[in-house]
Amino acid sequence: MSRVTARRKTTRLSPAGRIQRPDTLAVEEPLEIRVDGRSLTVTMRTPGNDIDLVHGFLFGEDIIGSADDIVTARYCAGTDSDGHNTYNVLDLSLREPVPIHTRNFLTSGACGLCGKTALDEVRTHTRFPIPHASGSIGTDVLTDLSRQLRAGQKLFEATGGLHAAALFTTDGTLLALREDIGRHNAVDKVIGWAVRENRVPAHDLVLVVSSRASFELAQKAVMAGIPILAAVSAPSALAVDVAVESGLTLVGFLRAETMNIYSGEHRLT
Amino acid sequence: MSRVTARRKTTRLSPAGRIQRPDTLAVEEPLEIRVDGRSLTVTMRTPGNDIDLVHGFLFGEDIIGSADDIVTARYCAGTDSDGHNTYNVLDLSLREPVPIHTRNFLTSGACGLCGKTALDEVRTHTRFPIPHASGSIGTDVLTDLSRQLRAGQKLFEATGGLHAAALFTTDGTLLALREDIGRHNAVDKVIGWAVRENRVPAHDLVLVVSSRASFELAQKAVMAGIPILAAVSAPSALAVDVAVESGLTLVGFLRAETMNIYSGEHRLT
Repeated sequence: MSRVTARRKTTRLSPAGRIQRPDTLAVEEPLEIRVDGRSLTVTMRTPGNDIDLVHGFLFGEDIIGSADDIVTARYCAGTDSDGHNTYNVLDLSLREPVPIHTRNFLTSGACGLCGKTALDEVRTHTRFPIPHASGSIGTDVLTDLSRQLRAGQKLFEATGGLHAAALFTTDGTLLALREDIGRHNAVDKVIGWAVRENRVPAHDLVLVVSSRASFELAQKAVMAGIPILAAVSAPSALAVDVAVESGLTLVGFLRAETMNIYSGEHRLT
Repeated sequence: MSRVTARRKTTRLSPAGRIQRPDTLAVEEPLEIRVDGRSLTVTMRTPGNDIDLVHGFLFGEDIIGSADDIVTARYCAGTDSDGHNTYNVLDLSLREPVPIHTRNFLTSGACGLCGKTALDEVRTHTRFPIPHASGSIGTDVLTDLSRQLRAGQKLFEATGGLHAAALFTTDGTLLALREDIGRHNAVDKVIGWAVRENRVPAHDLVLVVSSRASFELAQKAVMAGIPILAAVSAPSALAVDVAVESGLTLVGFLRAETMNIYSGEHRLT
């Protein structure tokens, strides 16, 4: 019983006519993350690898620095009106209480963004600055990673509706690939995997995403010390600015034979 | 001086060699929305049509029901260290103070999602239920809308990195088209336009999006009473469930000659 895809009836219209058939779609459900009894956030995600997701999410928000900072993570025992656990609430307890004041949870009446530049305000300082010499990769290896990513997107193949993120070694070996309806979730899931496997700081890994490279994805790579981020589609200007400032190699429009390098070109050999 | 696109240096690698050139990218900057002096949220958006964006966002969250509910909306006067206004903070005052307790701002220690189904928890009840008989459209008109949307995506053409949303009449006339780095922002901008133009409830309009149809986008259509949502890419299973329950016509994979109809087929003639 997969909770990752679901079938729904659809009517397919084409020049050949009208056909009724079931269609396989990506499942999207809310996950509520609770820390020490307090509801922290709700994210719309594709179920599966939720433990990786919360590790990656909390790591990206600088709420944890390693897997040891989470003492327990368990699904809430509550059931819905049919008596089933929805598995949509994760209760975490942390090793030590952490004051939670990050950009995504800004709720005070203080000045907030007022009088700050975009870059000043949104960035979160990383625990793991990227060494200039870390993680070089051959351009032929990098172009092959887009092929490997595409080949690994089994759920996208079935549904047409999922993003993917994957971590590779610099010699092109796939370590972890996750698909999710949200591209930030897909990245949180692979970085959460790395956190749980004690692979962070990931100075020797490459993060490849099937989507555009937003500021947020560049920031998540920087937080984990990942030296190379390659996106199949376009980066935003702010993602480039974050990459330049953080020493992150940022590649966009990664295709079978071509790519655009926006920063950190010295890592491509 | 456009704040919507920006140029950054890039190195283009291809079988033909290595070329250095400037590349035009989508701008992504944070917008902080403050309501009656209190910071409500920060969204990463492409600057432009911010007033539409806040109207659409607050409307989708059921914080306002019409444009009259916002008395003033002005950019914060603060300047950055260079003495420039960033135009990244919007201060709103509402006609009457509204208790803000919506799904996106869930912060209490109460049970939250625990023991509720996905659909029960995430939906926001609309002020404008969709009449069964509203808004029928010819399938030939609908397929033409995907062409019109694509033709209107000027910034996507330049950057490869923006989503679009557009509102059309049921006879295929384009009313408003907005592009943004976030697909939810693009939808908030066109629905905010409709709110400001007093076109809500929009029982006679069609919303077309360049992206996938997530739960969130289906929900935004339902909130505005829009009877037809068509997406160029895949819907999620939850988006289909919301559409079926709300009487929304949901079309996915809208292309030049083909489409999948997931709900509300009676509106397609």
